[in-house]
Amino acid sequence: MQLRDIITDKERLFLEKDVPEVYKTDFSYKEVATVHAVALPNTTQEVIDLVKFANKENIPIIARGAGTGVAGSQVPISGGELIIDVHQMNRILALDEETMTLTVEPGVKLNEIQVFVESKGYFYPPDPGSKNSTIGGNIATNAGGMRAVKYGTTRDYVRELEVVLPEGEKVTLGSLNIKSSSGYDLKNLFIGSEGTLGITTKIKLKVLPLPKYKQSVLLAFHTLKDATNGVLAILQNGIEPTALELFERGTIEYSEKYTKVLLQSQKGEAYVLMTIDSNEEETVTRKIDTVESILKGQAVEIIPLFTQEEEEKAWLLRDNILVALMQFTEYEMLDEVVPINKFSEMIDYTKELQTKHGLKVINFGHAGDGNIHTVLMKEGLDEATWQVRRQALLDDLYKKVNELGGLPSAEHGIGIIKKPYLEKMCNPVELDLMRKIKNAIDPDTRLNPGKLF
Amino acid sequence: MQLRDIITDKERLFLEKDVPEVYKTDFSYKEVATVHAVALPNTTQEVIDLVKFANKENIPIIARGAGTGVAGSQVPISGGELIIDVHQMNRILALDEETMTLTVEPGVKLNEIQVFVESKGYFYPPDPGSKNSTIGGNIATNAGGMRAVKYGTTRDYVRELEVVLPEGEKVTLGSLNIKSSSGYDLKNLFIGSEGTLGITTKIKLKVLPLPKYKQSVLLAFHTLKDATNGVLAILQNGIEPTALELFERGTIEYSEKYTKVLLQSQKGEAYVLMTIDSNEEETVTRKIDTVESILKGQAVEIIPLFTQEEEEKAWLLRDNILVALMQFTEYEMLDEVVPINKFSEMIDYTKELQTKHGLKVINFGHAGDGNIHTVLMKEGLDEATWQVRRQALLDDLYKKVNELGGLPSAEHGIGIIKKPYLEKMCNPVELDLMRKIKNAIDPDTRLNPGKLF
Ligand SMILES: Cc1cc2nc3c(=O)[nH]c(=O)nc-3n(C[C@H](O)[C@H](O)[C@H](O)COP(=O)(O)OP(=O)(O)OC[C@H]3O[C@@H](n4cnc5c(N)ncnc54)[C@H](O)[C@@H]3O)c2cc1C
Ligand SMILES: Cc1cc2nc3c(=O)[nH]c(=O)nc-3n(C[C@H](O)[C@H](O)[C@H](O)COP(=O)(O)OP(=O)(O)OC[C@H]3O[C@@H](n4cnc5c(N)ncnc54)[C@H](O)[C@@H]3O)c2cc1C
Repeated sequence: MQLRDIITDKERLFLEKDVPEVYKTDFSYKEVATVHAVALPNTTQEVIDLVKFANKENIPIIARGAGTGVAGSQVPISGGELIIDVHQMNRILALDEETMTLTVEPGVKLNEIQVFVESKGYFYPPDPGSKNSTIGGNIATNAGGMRAVKYGTTRDYVRELEVVLPEGEKVTLGSLNIKSSSGYDLKNLFIGSEGTLGITTKIKLKVLPLPKYKQSVLLAFHTLKDATNGVLAILQNGIEPTALELFERGTIEYSEKYTKVLLQSQKGEAYVLMTIDSNEEETVTRKIDTVESILKGQAVEIIPLFTQEEEEKAWLLRDNILVALMQFTEYEMLDEVVPINKFSEMIDYTKELQTKHGLKVINFGHAGDGNIHTVLMKEGLDEATWQVRRQALLDDLYKKVNELGGLPSAEHGIGIIKKPYLEKMCNPVELDLMRKIKNAIDPDTRLNPGKLF
Repeated sequence: MQLRDIITDKERLFLEKDVPEVYKTDFSYKEVATVHAVALPNTTQEVIDLVKFANKENIPIIARGAGTGVAGSQVPISGGELIIDVHQMNRILALDEETMTLTVEPGVKLNEIQVFVESKGYFYPPDPGSKNSTIGGNIATNAGGMRAVKYGTTRDYVRELEVVLPEGEKVTLGSLNIKSSSGYDLKNLFIGSEGTLGITTKIKLKVLPLPKYKQSVLLAFHTLKDATNGVLAILQNGIEPTALELFERGTIEYSEKYTKVLLQSQKGEAYVLMTIDSNEEETVTRKIDTVESILKGQAVEIIPLFTQEEEEKAWLLRDNILVALMQFTEYEMLDEVVPINKFSEMIDYTKELQTKHGLKVINFGHAGDGNIHTVLMKEGLDEATWQVRRQALLDDLYKKVNELGGLPSAEHGIGIIKKPYLEKMCNPVELDLMRKIKNAIDPDTRLNPGKLF
């Protein structure tokens, strides 16, 4: 049996030197390794056959979705991998209104899921900026995004996972039952495991009724400190925002340049973009009023975004921050998270590090989750200086994250880039438990070798 | 080193023949085995020392809380166990209002947690009937209870677990961070693992703001079928009840007899007891009105429980069903769960089985979760007939549960009693994964041998 016997369509199989460049790198990890082959299966059976083939031939495997990952997790680093790219397994299979579940293949794009369920009056809350990422990738990284502060992360919306295990066996984890005390929770173990335990081939997602009303508000603040204080005030007053994003003026400018659209406020140094949703219009209005009254002394400007057009404009700018950075500058983006009561302290500290290490630092992030995307800017620095300063800054930064009880990754994953920091920040006993589990499920390190730990 | 050197207080250590009877059995599992010793540690260090001692002496360990488990999970069955009873590690350590977390030792009783946080304006939603069970036991069984339909199960409220592993190492799983994509989710693996992977010694629980308003309604229906239809109607109309319990007249009668209190309705064959909570009084009123208008044609009687006294009376009766059964009759209680759209079919089927097998069957349960407590009544039957009929009925019943995509246990756990059914109903590949994980973490089967699988 050869790969050609499993994937018979020419355009679904690339061997060695024919492997397109795009499979060898990602936005953040550039060290290219040779790839044995890239196969694009259409069915679970093809995935199983590919995995069995790789086992026979002793070839490591990487599962891949849209390749939008930003931690290097989908990138071949050991060399000689078989990349199983499932993005063509992209059918929406069923919407079951009785159990409020949507059955999809792993290659369906997030954006398609959102549009599809909303057209039927339902709502799929997870909303990372990468609307073109696949649901399989979102599950493998436990993607978070804009609405996690109210609705939780991808994990909270996975009811059932069909997974092909490292030796090619198929298993379904989770169920449509609302509760279970029937053995170990394997579903949650596989979610967020970055393709190191199995390849997801089918998913049942939980959907919610679409909230009837929503409105966004843009809040501009003189200083970053005022903005983080504003975030805490919103959370402490029981507002329960759907989204609560923070970005600096120096961050959103990239997006303004990229989209050629200006943010509704040009005042102040930092912004909070907030959405409220509810099934009751009065609730939305009342909460917006509350926010205005709490923050009118502290904010430079409070701009309710009354029309859909205004709302979309602000969110477009927010969603495009990362793409814009990629376009215009060299940088390193982090994904740290700290307990919410340490959020302000953490953000302040990034600015201290800017001065200390002589490296420009800007921030944006999912403020309501305590999740900061700190961005280190290379700017005019030569490579050697950049590497030295960057490394020193990262060491300080993750040390602080650790002290505050935080973690290296909130939603992007560890991949290859954050491995050294997971190893430093994680209790060795916990790391050892993870290794034991990996070893129990994938004794030959077949899946995504060299990732995570 | 002897056990006496670890636990020096006489009243915290019972050896062999001095082990009180209560440690050898539970409400449902009666086969007594000899116990090596029962130790009641006061500190995590004592737990560690006990586990290390057991390792050296090659003694199996059972962790134990209040012993209220109803699946035989805390019962010694292999003989010669060291029971580590943590119910004296029962301090509430801290309420952190900034992160909305409560830190407790594992022996704190559920009821104490509820009363404590409510006195501070907070709310701990999980609410199993066993108010005297410990939080450590609740976590080990992923206890559900009355409010899971709106608020989820114990799993959803555990933020951090301190655990002593099978070889005596201590580790903290989870964190106060709202999101994580930093390695495998070990916390969820340990929750619901029935003491087979580690002993919980400290917990940080998530608490919510206490909802400002709540009200209960009692709905009486002519038939059980009308009641299950009522449940579905309530769920489909977006009512989002806090609690949605169902019980038959034949069930609640035991509770009436035990508490010497009569339910507010004596009409009909089946009841639904529902609570609505909200921060807005109008929302509660509106939802109750909606329920009345949807169900007024179907229900025999709809009784809003306006005073706290009336509300408490109805809930007291509901909470005491199981204790009352224990008092007055011989029975076997199940804990099956099916997807919510199969709930009505499953309940109907239990009544078919009653006729088919000549065994009285009554039901109660957390209807909103699809979780039924079917009770088989021994009544006047001799032991041999009971065993034959009971076994035949169970075989049919679990076959149906499986066909409907259900699971053997929603919230009580598998323990020893449901082991054969987990083994039948679970995909062998999934069972094998569970075994591999158990073996990776507890290679000598030190913790709770013979339980789960
Ligand atoms: C512009 C931009 C904005 C972003 N914004 C956010 C944000 O707001 N919040 C957030 O959480 N993330 C964000 N991300 C990261 C994003 O979540 C991930 O890129 C995405 O989840 C990965 O999906 P993918 O299909 O591209 O997976 P890939 O990049 O192809 O793979 C990522 C990982 O998933 C594994 N994987 C993929 N498919 C499968 C499968 N079927 N089975 C098993 N493993 C699989 C891979 O092995 C790899 O480990 C952003 C990324 C970009 C580029
Ligand atoms: C009257 C009654 C009503 C009930 N109603 C409900 C209900 O509505 N919903 C529901 O979900 N359940 C219900 N239950 C079951 C209840 O959830 C369990 O009894 C409870 O969760 C077990 O807690 P415990 O402290 O008594 O644990 P135990 O009975 O002592 O032990 C149960 C299991 O937990 C393990 N365990 C205990 N403590 C620890 C620890 N610190 N670390 C590791 N493992 C530990 C034991 O090894 C065992 O496997 C009810 C039980 C009764 C008797």
